[in-house]
Amino acid sequence: MGRLTQRHRIMRVGRDGAVRSRGDVVAVEEPLELRLGGDSFTVTMRTPGHDFELAAGFLVSEGLVAAPEEVRGMRYCAGTDPDGLQTYNVVDVTLDPRIARLSIGQHRQVLTTSACGICGTTSIDAVEKALPAAAAEGPQLSLTVEALLSLPDSLRQQQRIFDRTGGVHAAGLFDGEGELLCLREDVGRHNAVDKVVGWALTEGRLPLTGTALQVSGRASFELVQKAALAGVELLSAVGAPSSMAVDLAERAGITLAGFSRGETINIYTHPERLSDLVATPA
Amino acid sequence: MGRLTQRHRIMRVGRDGAVRSRGDVVAVEEPLELRLGGDSFTVTMRTPGHDFELAAGFLVSEGLVAAPEEVRGMRYCAGTDPDGLQTYNVVDVTLDPRIARLSIGQHRQVLTTSACGICGTTSIDAVEKALPAAAAEGPQLSLTVEALLSLPDSLRQQQRIFDRTGGVHAAGLFDGEGELLCLREDVGRHNAVDKVVGWALTEGRLPLTGTALQVSGRASFELVQKAALAGVELLSAVGAPSSMAVDLAERAGITLAGFSRGETINIYTHPERLSDLVATPA
Repeated sequence: MGRLTQRHRIMRVGRDGAVRSRGDVVAVEEPLELRLGGDSFTVTMRTPGHDFELAAGFLVSEGLVAAPEEVRGMRYCAGTDPDGLQTYNVVDVTLDPRIARLSIGQHRQVLTTSACGICGTTSIDAVEKALPAAAAEGPQLSLTVEALLSLPDSLRQQQRIFDRTGGVHAAGLFDGEGELLCLREDVGRHNAVDKVVGWALTEGRLPLTGTALQVSGRASFELVQKAALAGVELLSAVGAPSSMAVDLAERAGITLAGFSRGETINIYTHPERLSDLVATPA
Repeated sequence: MGRLTQRHRIMRVGRDGAVRSRGDVVAVEEPLELRLGGDSFTVTMRTPGHDFELAAGFLVSEGLVAAPEEVRGMRYCAGTDPDGLQTYNVVDVTLDPRIARLSIGQHRQVLTTSACGICGTTSIDAVEKALPAAAAEGPQLSLTVEALLSLPDSLRQQQRIFDRTGGVHAAGLFDGEGELLCLREDVGRHNAVDKVVGWALTEGRLPLTGTALQVSGRASFELVQKAALAGVELLSAVGAPSSMAVDLAERAGITLAGFSRGETINIYTHPERLSDLVATPA
């Protein structure tokens, strides 16, 4: 319960154009593995806290449970970090045996996202292994702060569906001059990124060395992971990043920007790709 | 590709307080089932269009595919609506046999959400069957427009994590007087709702007849489904609803409100729970 937020040192471009290093707080995002009677059932990326409620509500939403007595017990189990400390990222639920027998066998497996299997281990390490060695080559992308700040506007100007509905996310791929290479929209922000990556695969452009990806929403762990696997060098979000997004970007060598709001922006990791970013002495 | 947006007739509360019936456009959300060599692999809720790119990008993001030649072919398959028309909601991918053999067997099953299994059939019908009969009892909740408009502010005032990070979603459960019963925050908007529902289960309050749920983001199909399964009567979102959110709310008997912005709000379905909502003659 003490892990709701996490502090990071970031570079902040202010309204006056000055760049300052400062502390910043992001929301914690960690995987929760839900087990039923010891068997892995689902994994979700969540903010720690109220985990038993999350597990119970998920089972209600899946139509498995409707009354409190159908949940016989819940406990944290397994899952230790490298120092042997309990991660509190695995919850095991014991259901009424009749429900367990009747429902789960024919029940779909749900929501086992790309974060699967990382709950009980050092999550970032596990993902890191799957990453391409693109970062090892060092940065190929170089972008001015002005070009970076212009990306959300470029995105919005070409969002066809958003104009009509106000209700979809977008992902846009840009080169080092801030020129748009590919734009996709979707109700799901992960889908918009997948569509861009799929376009790149089809066009024979993977890995996407030398490119920047601008997204319309927040930056989650999964978005950074998608960007990293595709070889994108810079991910910029209009909204906030999560703690695991920052951690993974740092380790994967990706420049992560957030709260990109026209004049101001936060740089969370790897500012070296921004050619003219010079911090004002404190 | 013609299905990016959908028109609905809604009730709109304007800045002058007047209520008008008008046409409104929402973004289309439909399930896409991804199959590998004929076997169901994952389901995602998406905006139709660029589906082959979505499938390809998803496989890249999962680390299954890295080069275009590893995808041997893609086609729409199966899936017809009640009139026998192709739904274009099922994509079958043929991978290079070596990848198919090596990777998929040991690969996790991914993202089979609660929308699973509904892609090739009439999706709303399938979900509807799983709903409790709460709606059959008729509305127990009655709320004034003013109380409804006040919910986002009540939510924000008590969002602890958002205050510090600007980066989490919230879900708040309210009674007919607009009193907050339970508030939960999470990086995932679905998790925030699951936590509220889990709280209700634990407290013996299911079904949540007589309550309204306010969420900080948009209203997706899955959020309406979660509200419906928990017996919530009214779902209000700060952002836009998707097409399937509107369709399911209509059929499940839930009042769905969107773009709740202090003075203005859109009522998409079942306005009868708003006690003082009277449309101004056109």
